[in-house]
Order: sequence, then structure tokens, then C-alpha cells
Amino acid sequence: MSIKGIQDYYEERFSHCYGCGRLNEKGLQIKTNWEGDETVTRFTPRPYHTALPGFVYGGLIASLIDCHGTGSSTLAYAKANNITLEGSNAPRFVTGSLKVEYKKPTPLGPELEIRGKIREVKGKKVIVEASLSAEDKICATGEIISILVPENFGQIK
Amino acid sequence: MSIKGIQDYYEERFSHCYGCGRLNEKGLQIKTNWEGDETVTRFTPRPYHTALPGFVYGGLIASLIDCHGTGSSTLAYAKANNITLEGSNAPRFVTGSLKVEYKKPTPLGPELEIRGKIREVKGKKVIVEASLSAEDKICATGEIISILVPENFGQIK
Repeated sequence: MSIKGIQDYYEERFSHCYGCGRLNEKGLQIKTNWEGDETVTRFTPRPYHTALPGFVYGGLIASLIDCHGTGSSTLAYAKANNITLEGSNAPRFVTGSLKVEYKKPTPLGPELEIRGKIREVKGKKVIVEASLSAEDKICATGEIISILVPENFGQIK
Repeated sequence: MSIKGIQDYYEERFSHCYGCGRLNEKGLQIKTNWEGDETVTRFTPRPYHTALPGFVYGGLIASLIDCHGTGSSTLAYAKANNITLEGSNAPRFVTGSLKVEYKKPTPLGPELEIRGKIREVKGKKVIVEASLSAEDKICATGEIISILVPENFGQIK
């Protein structure tokens, strides 16, 4: 079986996210995986993901960094805790905080590459630094702090 | 004529943003306006804007705060510079940096209210603090720093 990304290992109930859920038919369905010590997601924006003409809108860039961050957190947490990913046993993270710096306009058209560096895995918290590039030029950088979803999620109101 | 938001005053070329462009048929088409000293945007997420089941995905929250911030920046800049908005003369801002703190899961279903406070208008830069609420409970807060789009935008490569 060809594994496309960490998102393929989430439980069904955690697979509906607009950004990264494999079961959200209208969503972005990003896939995140290790490449060496970094995590990587690639995504080609659609023509309507416009900001000003010719450029990608900032909300998509934030969304990609956000969901890349939660996926990267799962990868890092699994590695740090010696969890062998199989079936749908991937621990699920949600974002606690997100920062994005828009360095230059991101051209709309080329595939975007989001790369992550794991800064910290501490208990149930993971910090990921990310960069987003188009045609090998960094257009945005970001940081996300993510938190492991509690076991009883869905019972909290 | 009923004016729905500052986004109705952008030039045609600045009205295609996925988050706030009135001409982006697939986009969110948010509308931002003053309510007293604060700026307000209201938006009801669609069913597919899911994160974990029952909650709004973080990328949409970031997008709403982002585009609410650029709209608020235009409103604040126009006020500070005594610009009377008419036709399509609204100055256009883009995001330089975005921070979002996810305080609690945002329920999917109710209308969301994003409120902005103008922290600073300095030259071509505006800083806006934002909060996002569902059913009068704050679910996320954020800050955006936005920059006035240069006159020659589109000629820069």
C-alpha cells in the first residue's frame, strides 16, 4: 500500500477537517510526511484561491501552515513516543496558536511546498516552525503550537 | 443604496480575494463595517468547514481574522486620513503578519462574529486586534499587521 501522508492514519472521526481530512470531499486534503528530519506538505492552490490578482490569498497560506503543523505534530509525537503508525492509531493534534509572517506575495499557479521543523515535543504539546515556498522561494513562515486531542473529546461542551 | 461593507468600495482588481472579494463567486465574501469604535464582520460557516466533528476548522478562523483585519485596516486608514469612501476609492491593505490564539473549540453552526479594535495607524501600517465569538463566547483572538498596497502593485515581480 502506498502511504500518502500521516492524515491517512487518523481515525474516521478525526478525518473530516476541511484542511487535512481525507474524508472531506470539499476540503484541501493535504498530506504530510517526513523527508529526512523535516516534514513536508505539497499543495497546488486552485484558481479561485486568489488574493490580489496573480497571488494566493493569505487565509489559504494560514490554513496550509495550520494543518501542516498539526500533521507534523502527530508525526513528531509518534516518533518521540515510539508509536508505530498503523491502521488509524495516529494521535490527533489541534492548533493552540498560529503565527504567520507573509514575507512576499505567493504566486498563484505553482505547487506550494510547506516544510516543518520540529522545535519541541513536550508532553501533549508540540511546537513546529514552518516555511511555505513557491518555486524554491520562501513566501511565508510560521509557527504553530499544537495540543494532543484529549481522549474524551466530543464529550466536552 | 444599502452598503454592506468596506469590501464594496474596493477597485475591481482588488475584489477577487477568496476571503473578502465581492467578485469571487467561490469565496467567503465577508463584509466588514464600523459598529461604534469597533469593526465587525459576521459569517456563518458552511457545513464542510469542519475541524473535528461539530467544530469549525482553524484555517477558516485564521482566514476570517485575516480578511477582517485587512478590511478593518482600510476603514481605520480612511478615517485617520479623512478619506470619504465612495465608488471604488477604498485603499487596499494586505496582511504582513497574522497571529491567532485558539481559546476554545468554535462550534460549527452558529453565525460567527469577528470584532476588531484598531491598535495603531502609522503611515502605511495598521495593527488590528480581533476576537472571534460564537453565541457571545470568545473562541479565538488574533492580531494582524497590515500594509497598504503600493500604487504600482502588479508591476512587481
